[in-house]
Amino acid sequence: MKRIAESTVRRLSLYLRFLEEFEKAGRLTISSGELAKSGGTTSAQVRKDLSFFGSFGKRGLGYSISELTGAIRGILGLRHSWKVVIVGAGKIGAALAQYRGFRERDFHVVGIFDNDPRRVGQCYDGVAVADVRSLGADVRRLGAEIAIIAVPAEAAQDVADQVAAAGIHAILDFSTAAITVPQSVTLRSMNMAVELEILSFALTEGARHPDGAARS
Amino acid sequence: MKRIAESTVRRLSLYLRFLEEFEKAGRLTISSGELAKSGGTTSAQVRKDLSFFGSFGKRGLGYSISELTGAIRGILGLRHSWKVVIVGAGKIGAALAQYRGFRERDFHVVGIFDNDPRRVGQCYDGVAVADVRSLGADVRRLGAEIAIIAVPAEAAQDVADQVAAAGIHAILDFSTAAITVPQSVTLRSMNMAVELEILSFALTEGARHPDGAARS
Repeated sequence: MKRIAESTVRRLSLYLRFLEEFEKAGRLTISSGELAKSGGTTSAQVRKDLSFFGSFGKRGLGYSISELTGAIRGILGLRHSWKVVIVGAGKIGAALAQYRGFRERDFHVVGIFDNDPRRVGQCYDGVAVADVRSLGADVRRLGAEIAIIAVPAEAAQDVADQVAAAGIHAILDFSTAAITVPQSVTLRSMNMAVELEILSFALTEGARHPDGAARS
Repeated sequence: MKRIAESTVRRLSLYLRFLEEFEKAGRLTISSGELAKSGGTTSAQVRKDLSFFGSFGKRGLGYSISELTGAIRGILGLRHSWKVVIVGAGKIGAALAQYRGFRERDFHVVGIFDNDPRRVGQCYDGVAVADVRSLGADVRRLGAEIAIIAVPAEAAQDVADQVAAAGIHAILDFSTAAITVPQSVTLRSMNMAVELEILSFALTEGARHPDGAARS
Protein backbone atom coordinates (compact mmCIF):
# COMPACT_ATOMS: atom_id res chain seq x y z
CA MET A 1 0.00 0.00 0.00
CA LYS A 2 1.17 3.47 -0.90
CA ARG A 3 2.11 5.98 1.79
CA ILE A 4 -0.91 8.11 2.54
CA ALA A 5 -0.70 11.84 3.24
CA GLU A 6 -1.91 13.14 6.59
CA SER A 7 -4.50 15.32 4.88
CA THR A 8 -6.02 12.17 3.35
CA VAL A 9 -6.12 10.42 6.72
CA ARG A 10 -7.81 13.50 8.19
CA ARG A 11 -10.48 13.42 5.47
CA LEU A 12 -11.01 9.66 5.90
CA SER A 13 -11.62 10.28 9.58
CA LEU A 14 -14.21 12.94 8.69
CA TYR A 15 -15.88 10.70 6.09
CA LEU A 16 -16.17 8.06 8.82
CA ARG A 17 -17.99 10.61 11.04
CA PHE A 18 -20.52 11.31 8.25
CA LEU A 19 -20.94 7.67 7.28
CA GLU A 20 -21.77 6.81 10.87
CA GLU A 21 -24.37 9.58 10.94
CA PHE A 22 -25.91 8.40 7.66
CA GLU A 23 -25.90 4.82 8.97
CA LYS A 24 -27.71 5.89 12.17
CA ALA A 25 -30.29 7.62 9.99
CA GLY A 26 -30.99 4.27 8.30
CA ARG A 27 -29.29 4.92 4.96
CA LEU A 28 -27.70 1.99 3.10
CA THR A 29 -25.80 3.72 0.29
CA ILE A 30 -24.22 7.09 -0.31
CA SER A 31 -22.86 8.87 -3.38
CA SER A 32 -19.41 10.44 -3.54
CA GLY A 33 -21.24 13.74 -4.09
CA GLU A 34 -23.10 13.49 -0.79
CA LEU A 35 -19.93 12.52 1.05
CA ALA A 36 -18.10 15.42 -0.60
CA LYS A 37 -20.81 17.88 0.39
CA SER A 38 -20.67 16.79 4.05
CA GLY A 39 -16.89 17.10 4.09
CA GLY A 40 -16.72 20.42 2.26
CA THR A 41 -14.74 18.85 -0.57
CA THR A 42 -15.38 17.60 -4.14
CA SER A 43 -16.64 14.27 -5.51
CA ALA A 44 -13.36 13.89 -7.38
CA GLN A 45 -11.42 14.28 -4.11
CA VAL A 46 -13.61 11.69 -2.36
CA ARG A 47 -13.13 9.20 -5.20
CA LYS A 48 -9.39 9.86 -5.17
CA ASP A 49 -9.15 9.42 -1.38
CA LEU A 50 -11.01 6.12 -1.52
CA SER A 51 -9.12 4.85 -4.57
CA PHE A 52 -6.04 4.30 -2.39
CA PHE A 53 -7.76 1.32 -0.89
CA GLY A 54 -9.13 -0.51 -3.89
CA SER A 55 -12.43 -0.30 -5.65
CA PHE A 56 -15.51 0.65 -3.67
CA GLY A 57 -18.93 1.53 -4.95
CA LYS A 58 -20.77 0.94 -8.20
CA ARG A 59 -21.29 3.62 -10.83
CA GLY A 60 -24.77 5.10 -10.40
CA LEU A 61 -25.45 3.18 -7.19
CA GLY A 62 -23.00 4.87 -4.85
CA TYR A 63 -21.08 3.28 -2.03
CA SER A 64 -22.45 0.72 0.39
CA ILE A 65 -22.26 2.56 3.72
CA SER A 66 -21.52 -0.54 5.80
CA GLU A 67 -18.82 -1.73 3.39
CA LEU A 68 -17.18 1.68 3.20
CA THR A 69 -17.40 2.21 6.97
CA GLY A 70 -15.74 -1.16 7.57
CA ALA A 71 -13.00 -0.42 5.04
CA ILE A 72 -12.17 3.00 6.49
CA ARG A 73 -12.14 1.56 10.04
CA GLY A 74 -9.66 -1.04 8.83
CA ILE A 75 -7.47 1.54 7.13
CA LEU A 76 -7.42 3.76 10.20
CA GLY A 77 -6.51 0.82 12.44
CA LEU A 78 -9.79 1.07 14.35
CA ARG A 79 -10.48 -2.65 14.35
CA HIS A 80 -7.66 -2.88 16.86
CA SER A 81 -8.25 -2.05 20.52
CA TRP A 82 -5.62 0.52 21.62
CA LYS A 83 -4.23 0.86 25.14
CA VAL A 84 -3.95 4.47 26.28
CA VAL A 85 -2.25 6.08 29.27
CA ILE A 86 -3.12 9.59 30.44
CA VAL A 87 -0.35 11.57 32.11
CA GLY A 88 -1.68 14.39 34.27
CA ALA A 89 -4.85 14.03 36.35
CA GLY A 90 -5.73 17.73 36.63
CA LYS A 91 -9.01 19.07 35.28
CA ILE A 92 -8.31 18.26 31.62
CA GLY A 93 -6.71 14.88 32.40
CA ALA A 94 -9.59 13.89 34.67
CA ALA A 95 -12.16 14.97 32.08
CA LEU A 96 -10.35 12.88 29.45
CA ALA A 97 -10.14 9.89 31.80
CA GLN A 98 -13.93 9.89 31.95
CA TYR A 99 -14.51 10.61 28.26
CA ARG A 100 -17.04 8.09 26.90
CA GLY A 101 -15.87 8.56 23.32
CA PHE A 102 -12.70 6.57 24.03
CA ARG A 103 -14.43 3.33 24.85
CA GLU A 104 -16.96 3.76 22.03
CA ARG A 105 -14.02 3.73 19.62
CA ASP A 106 -12.07 1.00 21.43
CA PHE A 107 -9.42 3.24 22.97
CA HIS A 108 -8.95 1.85 26.48
CA VAL A 109 -7.51 3.98 29.25
CA VAL A 110 -5.27 1.51 31.10
CA GLY A 111 -3.34 3.97 33.28
CA ILE A 112 -3.51 7.51 34.68
CA PHE A 113 -0.51 9.23 36.25
CA ASP A 114 0.17 12.34 38.30
CA ASN A 115 2.94 13.74 40.49
CA ASP A 116 0.57 15.25 43.07
CA PRO A 117 0.16 12.89 46.07
CA ARG A 118 -3.40 14.24 46.58
CA ARG A 119 -4.38 12.96 43.16
CA VAL A 120 -2.63 9.60 43.36
CA GLY A 121 -5.17 6.91 44.27
CA GLN A 122 -8.21 8.78 42.95
CA CYS A 123 -10.28 6.57 40.71
CA TYR A 124 -11.71 7.39 37.27
CA ASP A 125 -13.92 4.76 35.65
CA GLY A 126 -12.15 2.00 37.55
CA VAL A 127 -8.59 3.18 36.93
CA ALA A 128 -6.67 4.56 39.92
CA VAL A 129 -4.25 7.46 39.43
CA ALA A 130 -0.70 6.15 39.88
CA ASP A 131 2.46 8.01 40.84
CA VAL A 132 4.18 9.39 37.76
CA ARG A 133 7.45 7.88 39.04
CA SER A 134 6.17 4.49 37.89
CA LEU A 135 5.20 5.81 34.43
CA GLY A 136 7.94 4.13 32.40
CA ALA A 137 7.68 0.78 34.16
CA ASP A 138 3.87 0.80 34.00
CA VAL A 139 3.79 1.68 30.29
CA ARG A 140 5.96 -1.38 29.61
CA ARG A 141 4.04 -3.66 31.97
CA LEU A 142 0.62 -2.62 30.60
CA GLY A 143 1.77 -2.67 26.97
CA ALA A 144 0.38 0.84 26.45
CA GLU A 145 0.54 2.13 22.88
CA ILE A 146 -0.72 5.71 23.05
CA ALA A 147 0.08 8.39 25.64
CA ILE A 148 -2.09 11.44 26.23
CA ILE A 149 -0.17 14.30 27.84
CA ALA A 150 -2.25 16.61 30.03
CA VAL A 151 0.40 18.16 32.27
CA PRO A 152 1.47 21.81 32.56
CA ALA A 153 3.58 23.09 29.63
CA GLU A 154 6.83 23.05 31.58
CA ALA A 155 6.53 19.33 32.36
CA ALA A 156 5.37 18.15 28.92
CA GLN A 157 8.77 17.56 27.30
CA ASP A 158 9.98 15.43 30.20
CA VAL A 159 6.83 13.28 30.06
CA ALA A 160 7.19 12.88 26.29
CA ASP A 161 10.81 11.76 26.73
CA GLN A 162 9.78 9.22 29.37
CA VAL A 163 6.94 7.62 27.41
CA ALA A 164 9.02 7.53 24.22
CA ALA A 165 11.83 5.80 26.13
CA ALA A 166 9.28 3.30 27.47
CA GLY A 167 8.29 2.30 23.93
CA ILE A 168 5.27 4.51 23.17
CA HIS A 169 5.02 5.41 19.48
CA ALA A 170 1.99 7.72 19.53
CA ILE A 171 1.42 10.82 21.65
CA LEU A 172 -1.52 13.20 21.85
CA ASP A 173 -0.36 16.37 23.59
CA PHE A 174 -2.90 18.63 25.31
CA SER A 175 -0.30 20.90 26.86
CA THR A 176 0.42 24.31 25.36
CA ALA A 177 4.11 23.42 25.07
CA ALA A 178 5.81 22.80 21.74
CA ILE A 179 7.49 19.47 22.43
CA THR A 180 9.75 17.43 20.18
CA VAL A 181 9.84 13.64 19.86
CA PRO A 182 12.07 11.07 18.16
CA GLN A 183 11.28 10.32 14.50
CA SER A 184 9.80 6.95 15.45
CA VAL A 185 7.06 8.64 17.49
CA THR A 186 3.96 10.23 15.96
CA LEU A 187 2.96 13.36 17.84
CA ARG A 188 -0.41 15.07 17.52
CA SER A 189 -1.04 18.29 19.32
CA MET A 190 -4.31 19.61 20.76
CA ASN A 191 -2.74 22.97 21.50
CA MET A 192 -5.59 25.24 22.51
CA ALA A 193 -3.28 28.27 22.80
CA VAL A 194 -2.32 27.97 19.12
CA GLU A 195 -5.93 27.50 18.01
CA LEU A 196 -7.10 30.51 20.04
CA GLU A 197 -4.31 32.61 18.58
CA ILE A 198 -5.34 31.60 15.05
CA LEU A 199 -8.87 32.77 15.92
CA SER A 200 -7.56 35.98 17.47
CA PHE A 201 -5.52 36.60 14.34
CA ALA A 202 -8.54 35.96 12.09
CA LEU A 203 -10.72 38.36 14.10
CA THR A 204 -7.99 41.00 13.99
CA GLU A 205 -7.49 40.50 10.24
CA GLY A 206 -11.27 40.73 9.80
CA ALA A 207 -11.17 44.15 11.46
CA ARG A 208 -8.13 45.15 9.36
CA HIS A 209 -9.82 44.02 6.13
CA PRO A 210 -13.55 44.41 6.79
CA ASP A 211 -14.23 43.85 3.07
CA GLY A 212 -12.77 40.33 2.96
CA ALA A 213 -14.32 37.51 4.98
CA ALA A 214 -12.00 35.74 7.42
CA ARG A 215 -11.09 32.34 6.09
CA SER A 216 -11.51 29.16 8.09
CA MET B 1 -0.51 44.10 4.93
CA LYS B 2 -0.46 40.96 2.81
CA ARG B 3 -2.80 38.07 3.56
CA ILE B 4 -0.93 35.59 5.72
CA ALA B 5 -1.27 31.82 5.32
CA GLU B 6 -2.58 29.80 8.23
CA SER B 7 0.64 27.80 8.39
CA THR B 8 2.52 31.07 8.98
CA VAL B 9 0.14 32.09 11.76
CA ARG B 10 0.61 28.67 13.35
CA ARG B 11 4.40 29.07 13.29
CA LEU B 12 4.17 32.61 14.70
CA SER B 13 2.14 31.21 17.56
CA LEU B 14 4.83 28.59 18.19
CA TYR B 15 7.64 31.18 17.97
CA LEU B 16 5.75 33.17 20.60
CA ARG B 17 5.75 30.09 22.89
CA PHE B 18 9.54 29.76 22.55
CA LEU B 19 10.21 33.48 22.88
CA GLU B 20 8.26 33.55 26.14
CA GLU B 21 10.31 30.62 27.41
CA PHE B 22 13.59 32.31 26.43
CA GLU B 23 12.37 35.54 28.05
CA LYS B 24 11.56 33.71 31.29
CA ALA B 25 15.07 32.25 31.20
CA GLY B 26 16.43 35.81 31.18
CA ARG B 27 17.59 35.97 27.57
CA LEU B 28 17.47 39.34 25.76
CA THR B 29 18.20 38.37 22.14
CA ILE B 30 17.74 35.31 19.98
CA SER B 31 19.01 34.31 16.54
CA SER B 32 16.77 33.07 13.73
CA GLY B 33 18.75 29.83 13.97
CA GLU B 34 17.78 29.25 17.59
CA LEU B 35 14.16 30.08 16.89
CA ALA B 36 14.22 27.73 13.89
CA LYS B 37 15.70 24.92 15.97
CA SER B 38 12.99 25.25 18.64
CA GLY B 39 10.27 25.23 16.00
CA GLY B 40 11.68 22.36 13.95
CA THR B 41 12.08 24.63 10.92
CA THR B 42 14.87 26.51 9.11
CA SER B 43 16.46 29.94 9.68
CA ALA B 44 15.34 30.94 6.20
CA GLN B 45 11.73 30.06 7.09
CA VAL B 46 11.91 32.06 10.32
CA ARG B 47 13.30 35.10 8.49
CA LYS B 48 10.63 34.75 5.81
CA ASP B 49 7.82 34.45 8.39
CA LEU B 50 8.99 37.55 10.23
CA SER B 51 9.62 39.54 7.05
CA PHE B 52 5.85 39.90 6.57
CA PHE B 53 5.82 42.36 9.41
CA GLY B 54 8.71 44.64 8.61
CA SER B 55 12.32 44.51 9.60
CA PHE B 56 13.26 42.98 12.92
CA GLY B 57 16.67 42.08 14.21
CA LYS B 58 20.16 43.18 13.30
CA ARG B 59 22.54 41.06 11.27
CA GLY B 60 24.89 39.27 13.67
CA LEU B 61 23.05 40.45 16.78
CA GLY B 62 19.80 38.51 16.40
CA TYR B 63 16.35 39.63 17.37
CA SER B 64 15.46 41.55 20.50
CA ILE B 65 13.18 39.11 22.33
CA SER B 66 10.97 41.77 23.89
CA GLU B 67 10.57 43.63 20.59
CA LEU B 68 9.81 40.45 18.65
CA THR B 69 7.41 39.18 21.32
CA GLY B 70 5.52 42.46 21.26
CA ALA B 71 5.35 42.48 17.48
CA ILE B 72 4.05 38.91 17.24
CA ARG B 73 1.46 39.60 19.97
CA GLY B 74 0.29 42.59 17.95
CA ILE B 75 0.09 40.58 14.73
CA LEU B 76 -1.87 37.79 16.41
CA GLY B 77 -4.30 40.29 17.93
CA LEU B 78 -3.23 39.42 21.46
CA ARG B 79 -3.06 43.00 22.67
CA HIS B 80 -6.83 42.95 22.52
CA SER B 81 -8.83 41.36 25.32
CA TRP B 82 -11.28 38.84 23.78
CA LYS B 83 -14.66 37.91 25.21
CA VAL B 84 -15.36 34.18 25.11
CA VAL B 85 -18.51 32.14 25.71
CA ILE B 86 -18.39 28.42 26.43
CA VAL B 87 -21.38 26.36 25.29
CA GLY B 88 -21.67 23.07 27.17
CA ALA B 89 -20.86 22.77 30.87
CA GLY B 90 -20.12 19.05 30.95
CA LYS B 91 -16.71 17.72 31.99
CA ILE B 92 -14.76 19.30 29.12
CA GLY B 93 -16.72 22.57 29.22
CA ALA B 94 -16.29 22.86 33.00
CA ALA B 95 -12.56 22.12 32.73
CA LEU B 96 -12.24 24.82 30.07
CA ALA B 97 -14.25 27.30 32.16
CA GLN B 98 -11.60 26.97 34.86
CA TYR B 99 -8.60 26.97 32.55
CA ARG B 100 -6.04 29.50 33.82
CA GLY B 101 -4.39 29.83 30.42
CA PHE B 102 -7.33 31.88 29.14
CA ARG B 103 -6.93 34.75 31.53
CA GLU B 104 -3.13 34.69 31.23
CA ARG B 105 -3.60 35.44 27.52
CA ASP B 106 -6.47 37.90 27.99
CA PHE B 107 -9.24 35.61 26.81
CA HIS B 108 -12.10 36.31 29.19
CA VAL B 109 -14.87 33.79 29.73
CA VAL B 110 -17.97 36.01 29.96
CA GLY B 111 -20.64 33.32 29.65
CA ILE B 112 -21.20 29.57 30.07
CA PHE B 113 -24.30 27.82 28.76
CA ASP B 114 -25.94 24.42 29.10
CA ASN B 115 -29.34 22.86 28.44
CA ASP B 116 -29.29 20.68 31.58
CA PRO B 117 -31.24 22.35 34.43
CA ARG B 118 -28.92 20.63 36.95
CA ARG B 119 -25.95 22.50 35.51
CA VAL B 120 -27.63 25.89 35.11
CA GLY B 121 -26.65 28.13 38.04
CA GLN B 122 -23.39 26.31 38.83
CA CYS B 123 -20.52 28.75 39.14
CA TYR B 124 -17.06 28.54 37.56
CA ASP B 125 -14.58 31.27 38.45
CA GLY B 126 -17.39 33.72 39.13
CA VAL B 127 -19.43 32.96 36.00
CA ALA B 128 -22.76 31.15 36.49
CA VAL B 129 -23.93 28.62 33.91
CA ALA B 130 -26.91 30.10 32.03
CA ASP B 131 -29.70 28.33 30.16
CA VAL B 132 -28.70 27.74 26.55
CA ARG B 133 -32.06 29.19 25.50
CA SER B 134 -30.65 32.65 26.24
CA LEU B 135 -27.45 31.97 24.23
CA GLY B 136 -28.17 34.24 21.26
CA ALA B 137 -29.47 37.13 23.33
CA ASP B 138 -26.60 36.84 25.82
CA VAL B 139 -23.92 36.71 23.11
CA ARG B 140 -25.28 40.00 21.75
CA ARG B 141 -25.71 41.60 25.17
CA LEU B 142 -22.21 40.58 26.35
CA GLY B 143 -20.55 41.45 23.05
CA ALA B 144 -18.90 38.02 22.95
CA GLU B 145 -16.44 37.51 20.10
CA ILE B 146 -15.36 33.87 20.39
CA ALA B 147 -17.50 30.79 21.11
CA ILE B 148 -16.09 27.52 22.41
CA ILE B 149 -18.36 24.56 21.65
CA ALA B 150 -18.17 21.71 24.16
CA VAL B 151 -21.50 19.96 23.58
CA PRO B 152 -22.17 16.41 22.33
CA ALA B 153 -21.57 15.91 18.59
CA GLU B 154 -25.28 15.81 17.72
CA ALA B 155 -25.89 19.28 19.21
CA ALA B 156 -22.78 21.01 17.83
CA GLN B 157 -24.16 22.19 14.48
CA ASP B 158 -27.20 23.78 16.09
CA VAL B 159 -25.02 25.66 18.59
CA ALA B 160 -22.70 26.84 15.79
CA ASP B 161 -25.71 28.12 13.83
CA GLN B 162 -26.99 30.00 16.88
CA VAL B 163 -23.73 31.73 17.78
CA ALA B 164 -23.05 32.61 14.13
CA ALA B 165 -26.53 34.13 13.87
CA ALA B 166 -25.80 36.12 17.05
CA GLY B 167 -22.75 37.72 15.47
CA ILE B 168 -19.86 35.48 16.59
CA HIS B 169 -17.07 35.32 13.99
CA ALA B 170 -14.72 32.82 15.67
CA ILE B 171 -15.52 29.31 16.91
CA LEU B 172 -13.34 26.71 18.62
CA ASP B 173 -15.11 23.36 18.41
CA PHE B 174 -14.29 20.61 20.91
CA SER B 175 -17.05 18.28 19.76
CA THR B 176 -16.28 15.30 17.55
CA ALA B 177 -18.80 16.53 14.99
CA ALA B 178 -17.79 17.94 11.61
CA ILE B 179 -19.74 21.18 11.59
CA THR B 180 -19.99 23.80 8.87
CA VAL B 181 -20.14 27.57 9.33
CA PRO B 182 -20.80 30.60 7.11
CA GLN B 183 -17.78 32.00 5.25
CA SER B 184 -17.63 34.98 7.59
CA VAL B 185 -16.91 32.71 10.57
CA THR B 186 -13.49 31.22 11.31
CA LEU B 187 -13.80 27.71 12.69
CA ARG B 188 -11.01 25.84 14.47
CA SER B 189 -11.53 22.29 15.52
CA MET B 190 -10.08 20.46 18.52
CA ASN B 191 -11.44 17.15 17.30
CA MET B 192 -9.91 14.50 19.50
CA ALA B 193 -11.53 11.68 17.52
CA VAL B 194 -9.72 12.78 14.36
CA GLU B 195 -6.38 13.14 16.17
CA LEU B 196 -6.70 9.72 17.79
CA GLU B 197 -7.54 8.18 14.43
CA ILE B 198 -4.47 9.78 12.87
CA LEU B 199 -2.42 8.17 15.68
CA SER B 200 -4.18 4.85 15.21
CA PHE B 201 -3.43 5.04 11.50
CA ALA B 202 0.23 5.85 12.14
CA LEU B 203 0.61 2.93 14.56
CA THR B 204 -1.09 0.58 12.08
CA GLU B 205 1.07 1.88 9.22
CA GLY B 206 4.12 1.42 11.43
CA ALA B 207 3.17 -2.25 11.85
CA ARG B 208 2.52 -2.57 8.09
CA HIS B 209 5.87 -0.97 7.21
CA PRO B 210 8.12 -1.79 10.17
CA ASP B 211 11.12 -0.59 8.14
CA GLY B 212 9.89 3.00 7.77
CA ALA B 213 9.43 5.23 10.80
CA ALA B 214 5.97 6.68 11.29
CA ARG B 215 5.95 10.36 10.41
CA SER B 216 4.61 13.00 12.73
